[in-house]
Amino acid sequence: MSHQSSVQPLLPKIAGPADVKGLALEQLPQLAHEIREELIAVTSRNGGHIGPNLGVVELTIALHRVFSTPEDQVVFDVAHQGYVHKLLTGRQGEFFRQLRKSGGASGFLYRPESPHDSFGAGHAGTALSAALGMATARDLRGSSEHVVAVCGDAALTCGITLEALNNVVSSTKRLIVVLNDNEWSIAKNVGAISKYLNRISTSATYNRLHHDVEAFFKSFPTGVEMNRVYHKWKRETKDFFVESSLFEKFGLRYLGPVDGHNFDALVKNLEFAQHCDVPVLVHVLTKKGKGLEAALAHPEKFHGASPFDPVTGESTKAAAGAPPNYQDVFGQALTRFARANSNVLGITAAMPSGTGLSLLAREVPQQFFDVGIAEEHAVLFAAGLATKGFRPVCAIYSTFLQRAYDQVIHDVCLQNLPVTFCLDRAGLSPNDGPTHHGLFDVAYLRCVPNAIVMQPKDEDELVDMMHTSLSLPGPSFLRYPRGAGTGAEVKAQPALLPVGQAQLLREGSNIMIWALGPMVQEALRLAERLSREENLSVGVVNARFIKPLDRTLLLSQAAVVPLIVTMEDHVLAGGFGSAVLEALQEADCATPVERIGWPDKFVEHGTSVEVLRAAYGLSPDDIARRVKDRYRRLGAEPVAAEA
Amino acid sequence: MSHQSSVQPLLPKIAGPADVKGLALEQLPQLAHEIREELIAVTSRNGGHIGPNLGVVELTIALHRVFSTPEDQVVFDVAHQGYVHKLLTGRQGEFFRQLRKSGGASGFLYRPESPHDSFGAGHAGTALSAALGMATARDLRGSSEHVVAVCGDAALTCGITLEALNNVVSSTKRLIVVLNDNEWSIAKNVGAISKYLNRISTSATYNRLHHDVEAFFKSFPTGVEMNRVYHKWKRETKDFFVESSLFEKFGLRYLGPVDGHNFDALVKNLEFAQHCDVPVLVHVLTKKGKGLEAALAHPEKFHGASPFDPVTGESTKAAAGAPPNYQDVFGQALTRFARANSNVLGITAAMPSGTGLSLLAREVPQQFFDVGIAEEHAVLFAAGLATKGFRPVCAIYSTFLQRAYDQVIHDVCLQNLPVTFCLDRAGLSPNDGPTHHGLFDVAYLRCVPNAIVMQPKDEDELVDMMHTSLSLPGPSFLRYPRGAGTGAEVKAQPALLPVGQAQLLREGSNIMIWALGPMVQEALRLAERLSREENLSVGVVNARFIKPLDRTLLLSQAAVVPLIVTMEDHVLAGGFGSAVLEALQEADCATPVERIGWPDKFVEHGTSVEVLRAAYGLSPDDIARRVKDRYRRLGAEPVAAEA
Repeated sequence: MSHQSSVQPLLPKIAGPADVKGLALEQLPQLAHEIREELIAVTSRNGGHIGPNLGVVELTIALHRVFSTPEDQVVFDVAHQGYVHKLLTGRQGEFFRQLRKSGGASGFLYRPESPHDSFGAGHAGTALSAALGMATARDLRGSSEHVVAVCGDAALTCGITLEALNNVVSSTKRLIVVLNDNEWSIAKNVGAISKYLNRISTSATYNRLHHDVEAFFKSFPTGVEMNRVYHKWKRETKDFFVESSLFEKFGLRYLGPVDGHNFDALVKNLEFAQHCDVPVLVHVLTKKGKGLEAALAHPEKFHGASPFDPVTGESTKAAAGAPPNYQDVFGQALTRFARANSNVLGITAAMPSGTGLSLLAREVPQQFFDVGIAEEHAVLFAAGLATKGFRPVCAIYSTFLQRAYDQVIHDVCLQNLPVTFCLDRAGLSPNDGPTHHGLFDVAYLRCVPNAIVMQPKDEDELVDMMHTSLSLPGPSFLRYPRGAGTGAEVKAQPALLPVGQAQLLREGSNIMIWALGPMVQEALRLAERLSREENLSVGVVNARFIKPLDRTLLLSQAAVVPLIVTMEDHVLAGGFGSAVLEALQEADCATPVERIGWPDKFVEHGTSVEVLRAAYGLSPDDIARRVKDRYRRLGAEPVAAEA
Repeated sequence: MSHQSSVQPLLPKIAGPADVKGLALEQLPQLAHEIREELIAVTSRNGGHIGPNLGVVELTIALHRVFSTPEDQVVFDVAHQGYVHKLLTGRQGEFFRQLRKSGGASGFLYRPESPHDSFGAGHAGTALSAALGMATARDLRGSSEHVVAVCGDAALTCGITLEALNNVVSSTKRLIVVLNDNEWSIAKNVGAISKYLNRISTSATYNRLHHDVEAFFKSFPTGVEMNRVYHKWKRETKDFFVESSLFEKFGLRYLGPVDGHNFDALVKNLEFAQHCDVPVLVHVLTKKGKGLEAALAHPEKFHGASPFDPVTGESTKAAAGAPPNYQDVFGQALTRFARANSNVLGITAAMPSGTGLSLLAREVPQQFFDVGIAEEHAVLFAAGLATKGFRPVCAIYSTFLQRAYDQVIHDVCLQNLPVTFCLDRAGLSPNDGPTHHGLFDVAYLRCVPNAIVMQPKDEDELVDMMHTSLSLPGPSFLRYPRGAGTGAEVKAQPALLPVGQAQLLREGSNIMIWALGPMVQEALRLAERLSREENLSVGVVNARFIKPLDRTLLLSQAAVVPLIVTMEDHVLAGGFGSAVLEALQEADCATPVERIGWPDKFVEHGTSVEVLRAAYGLSPDDIARRVKDRYRRLGAEPVAAEA
């Protein structure tokens, strides 16, 4: 795969899978090389899932040589390793170069983007189930297309994949599972199945066997004949296959391990799988980050990377003096709390660096647990620890806690166990898009009895809330945004916040804004602007607690201020503003409320929070206009103006 | 185990586990017999999970012979097989006889009920994860108690259990998993693991081996010595253990299969497990329903039974002419739709009879799918089917759909796939209690874009909604209550309901009640009563659609009626009433709203819906009083009275 700069480039001519099939086998390494260059060029500018994609270049090319999308369905798990697939299915060029930006390609597969994307996903572990649905549909229709699920080894830590695995045999006789085994989850993969795969891959018997099989296959023509051949071979080698029995227990024929960077081996095995009359798992060994030295050396960092220097691999530096990310403040604080109290434990579901827990893992490893992509187990495991006096802290992104919603209700809150949930990425996750925005957690958590739900206005308050949470007798939930904080200095000694008490930041007599989290800064700017432009007296409250809401303060203000405004980085349906409406209604208070938040739509990916907010009528100008208009309309309403 | 009526009864003297240990081995069959009599006597009157409990009588006695709760933790999966445990841990007598009634024992384990209940659960698949948390806590503390997870074979169809299984080896070296294998989920168990267990249990090699092991063990003293002995035995018999490799792949030592009704075998194996220095799985074969002929003959019916005749096993008859259950109307309608359209498919997660899908399974089996206790997979499988033009109907109780919340958001609604969700048991499930009430679904669903959420006022409208849902291009959610409908006759030809359109049932000029589902009947009675007692003109709207809400009708009424009342069988936080508040706020409408629904508390189990409603201030009298009071207070509010 050396750089062949004198040759005509191939990638620009690939308009679709047919062109991939049209290349000669010898041209494929060049295509792979060009794809890697393009992947590195684009992700080094835009950020993105570079590591996983560099690992699946040959595999994806081989899939498009053997299968024919969109007639055949290839379902990529998580779909963040779908960049190569995008480049091969008509989405290269400017569209791909705007990857993860407004108007450009999504960072995941996305059904509206291409008929070649049979199933979208930004959360892991869904491919096998979805593919099983498609295969069953095919069987019911009696058609003959192929259904291929491409799963990372980490997907096998996820309960959904395992549920699907248990259902394969009863659902279909024709399904191809490609296990893309790079030994990594986002972090180094964990658990018994991971150990098992490693054992297969490194076993001398297997490697030798694999070699024999290669030689054996080479002596036969491809096609249906292979089936008979395989059966014969299977009988003869059966005794060596003890290690593959895990998948065979689930009724899948095991093929592998296959070198995931060898076109010949990949195509042969996929063609064989194509002709199997039982569900088959093709175990493919790939190298995450292949083709980028820095990514090979730091696979976790380059799983989903920020923009970086393509030569050195160094992250493009944030401006000097830029505020730290919430996740880092969280990780540092948790490490301090854990050092001070051996009962404090950190739990992640395969996201040690994304959540900021890597520091805890390094500094206080015995109080750190990575359970794999297993959010349900993470929460239940925490519940079990909490029954015995520990103070588990589950660090799970807002969007991924949706995975453990039943455990939150049925196991933690119902039993009122003191588990702290830290929901990073609450609010927009702009480049990632709708699968990653954390826009529903307020609605789905505040209906749950015993839950205490809070959001800090800055990093210092985040640490106060962690400290407060660790002192509470029951469950609590802290939501905070993706990315940089405000730069607020974190106190040496965190404060214990009175539960259910908001913080009045600015007095006002015409309008009072109740703001949540990052909206507090927006609210302060808005108040200043309305004061300047409209001569209005606008107060600001840092709500702090979504639940319990500070009804005392709210009602005392609503009794004298003619308009309440709520601001949240969350959908309006059932959100924080609705909690305010409910509190006023329960107190017979008719003071009007203007609620600012996201509308009832899935928000796409975009270049930045600002760009997306503007696209949905949530720019500072838009909000100022809405609030002014609403305030003006009050004049026409005898009701509220006097309330 | 013959009836020894001349002997002194043993059960009344069992005040706790110590008394179980105090009995002679020969007395245990008598104790088991008395327990079975008590189980049958109580559940035949109160209903309850009779089948599972009859199967674990000897096992539970053996557990209390070998382990010492509450120092040792025994975590029962689902905990509906915990009745025997309750009888042995100080909860027999009147408390147990009021099982599932107000003031009596919960139908599940429940931490506040006894220190012997280390973890409560009404949903399946949680025990192994929770136990792993407890075992890890023990290891961190350095204490020496035992942690035992007792799981049914059906728990192995559930992703959480499988996630936990993958984490066992990395979490602890000491954990005992008792696999209570009765070959049943609620229905006959499904999937590859179930087949695998069946193969082990029926294998001649195994049964012979088991016998040899028994004999082998008998010749040695118990205690630490056994470890050495076991290792020797293990070496000698290794080759026979190929079939147990599934659990050994996960790092658990496999012991079994053990006759779950043989005290000697049970105690020996549990004692051995107690001394293992690696995680161990004890595979116990039990007979669901043992001791009750009718339950043995109809295991699904007697899984969780209504009151029945203890002699004949016949269900206590509902009054002649009583209305049918919603689930049966649903099952009949779905069967009709499926017959008429081969694209209509029914999917259940191990609840064919509870959801009413048994009829479909019998009549149109090729359009019926039971995926096991695997709600996440069920929803994703449906999503996969929907991408290929099918119309899957997922019948999952409201409380269990919490399990698949992420799949609802990320896979179905985000991709706008036409999956129909039928949420039975939406609202109270009175005898079952807090793990089974479906009181959160409106809040957690109405925040999700693309979701259409509805609730019918009666059985006929349920069928109309199913028909409507099957014609929609995207996802929809139908919630309906547990138990009997209103007796409304189901039309021969269902109607297509206009989406987002409510139904005005009764005009009114003073108060307009917006009611959901079963609350519509309550609202009509309330309107009648307020008219009679207070001379108020009270209208009633059957809301039908929670989302999209009929804003047109609502706003037209709010413009002229001084008070809107909402009634829902759901928590108030984020519920239907909040949707009404939001709609009014968005239209600048200050008309006051009185919201009737459940408060922010977990509602315990109770004798009936009526009893529980009264306990929470929701009796018809309470509601009438609140509405009257609120209406009277309007007079003091210039705002609303004129709106």
